[in-house]
Amino acid sequence: MIEIIFLGTSCMQPTKERNHPGVLLTYEGENILFDCGEGIQRQMKIAGIKPAKITKLLITHWHGDHVLGIPGLMQTMGASEYEKKLHIYGPEGTKEYIKNMMKAFVSEGTIDFEVHEVKERIIFENDMFILECLPLQHATKTVGYSFIEKDKRRINTSYVKKLGIPDGPLLGKLQNGKDIEWKGKKISADDATIIVKGKKVSYVLDTMICNNAVELAKDADLLICEASYTKAMRDKAEEYKHLTGEEAATIANRANVKELYLTHFSQRYKNTDEIEENAKDVFPNVKCAKDFMKVKL
Amino acid sequence: MIEIIFLGTSCMQPTKERNHPGVLLTYEGENILFDCGEGIQRQMKIAGIKPAKITKLLITHWHGDHVLGIPGLMQTMGASEYEKKLHIYGPEGTKEYIKNMMKAFVSEGTIDFEVHEVKERIIFENDMFILECLPLQHATKTVGYSFIEKDKRRINTSYVKKLGIPDGPLLGKLQNGKDIEWKGKKISADDATIIVKGKKVSYVLDTMICNNAVELAKDADLLICEASYTKAMRDKAEEYKHLTGEEAATIANRANVKELYLTHFSQRYKNTDEIEENAKDVFPNVKCAKDFMKVKL
Repeated sequence: MIEIIFLGTSCMQPTKERNHPGVLLTYEGENILFDCGEGIQRQMKIAGIKPAKITKLLITHWHGDHVLGIPGLMQTMGASEYEKKLHIYGPEGTKEYIKNMMKAFVSEGTIDFEVHEVKERIIFENDMFILECLPLQHATKTVGYSFIEKDKRRINTSYVKKLGIPDGPLLGKLQNGKDIEWKGKKISADDATIIVKGKKVSYVLDTMICNNAVELAKDADLLICEASYTKAMRDKAEEYKHLTGEEAATIANRANVKELYLTHFSQRYKNTDEIEENAKDVFPNVKCAKDFMKVKL
Repeated sequence: MIEIIFLGTSCMQPTKERNHPGVLLTYEGENILFDCGEGIQRQMKIAGIKPAKITKLLITHWHGDHVLGIPGLMQTMGASEYEKKLHIYGPEGTKEYIKNMMKAFVSEGTIDFEVHEVKERIIFENDMFILECLPLQHATKTVGYSFIEKDKRRINTSYVKKLGIPDGPLLGKLQNGKDIEWKGKKISADDATIIVKGKKVSYVLDTMICNNAVELAKDADLLICEASYTKAMRDKAEEYKHLTGEEAATIANRANVKELYLTHFSQRYKNTDEIEENAKDVFPNVKCAKDFMKVKL
């Protein structure tokens, strides 16, 4: 199961209710943090999540509100005897920014980490999932990310029961997509298993409306998308290269996603009803995220 | 009147209830922030204090928990059209750390600021107050600070009434400590006014017990002092060059301060009763600070 928690849903300025951006995706022992604004380590503490769980950090861009929580988080991970290697992904320039960040204070605990500068398409792949990115259109070099769970095979129990195939290595082979022989007869994995489609989560923050945002989120089960402004403030959104609720919904619509969660709201909005309404006119299955909101897929 | 608000009372790791360190002192249009841990700008937002009010930032040392809120705060001040110049004070190395900090992200708004590296004694003085510092003993270059309000003269109204001196420039002169002539007679400012002793607030964070801490806090009306550990954990305090509650109280005692507020508690303490009790055994007028606690002097 994929679990998502919103750790911060404001943009440049935090509010009483909303911290700077951060979204944690948990899946089969992987804990992927998308962006890490100031205060994210405290949000994790409040949510009861241990920073030492984090395996990957995916940075969309280097505006302060998306990154200023990194050094404190890494320091706290160091104090928790983090034994893994943290993999940090971000657009061109990330290595230099991280280097300067680590020279900006006296660190009391360090962790092993590796920085990967990413451009487009697959940036990580294992047996279970793929991470992809595509460049977006913002005031500085920015990428969006997709987490793509791979399809899995589930044994068609009634089928194998009928044939009398016992539990054990033969079923394991079928589950791995390999055909087997049983009582002199070839059994095809495609017949003996059912394909369970993997889920896809896309993360499109800080951008203007652009084809890559649509391409990245194509057929996603869940799109997390910025919607800094209401439709009435489209001029402001354009000036700062951000999205309105309506534009985020347009991306969701064009990308044929199943569900849309909006985030990264300007601090001027005491409530986000208008942004949600603007979005609903275009794409009905939409919610405005709040800090600590959880989604399961 | 001097007003103080604790914006963060944890140390290296924040807790659900306590943010990283920061104390704001407000006095006659001056807003002096002592230390600026991660999340301080959000704490200000929660407390209803505008970041653009800040006039001076006094950094004790460059461990992450005391400084990682600076870049975000300055960015937010920039977005608020900050028209003053922010004066940043800190120990040797502060210029270099600030320079690296500003190269660690893409800033969206900048403010005018000036960095002052401080060593000891008076670092700022105007008609109303003095700021002093002294080096302390910690794992990195560290200073403590004192805010010292200057003594003021208040008109002795019954005295001047008896002589018939009218409201106006003559009273102004007396209040400024200048003698005057009235009806051919010399009136001494010392007779016509009452001296109101200025208040002193000292800020002693991250240090081992040392003479300079006592010297800095000498006769302070209020000492804000770190007490990271209980007496039972003195070994840990020594290892990390911090104070126990008892040691903080010993400083308060030796310095003859009036009131002691403890802060900078290790995240291991769910409540700080034991630290307060350890301190009370040595110095009775002591309180453990909490986030958003206010003190008026």
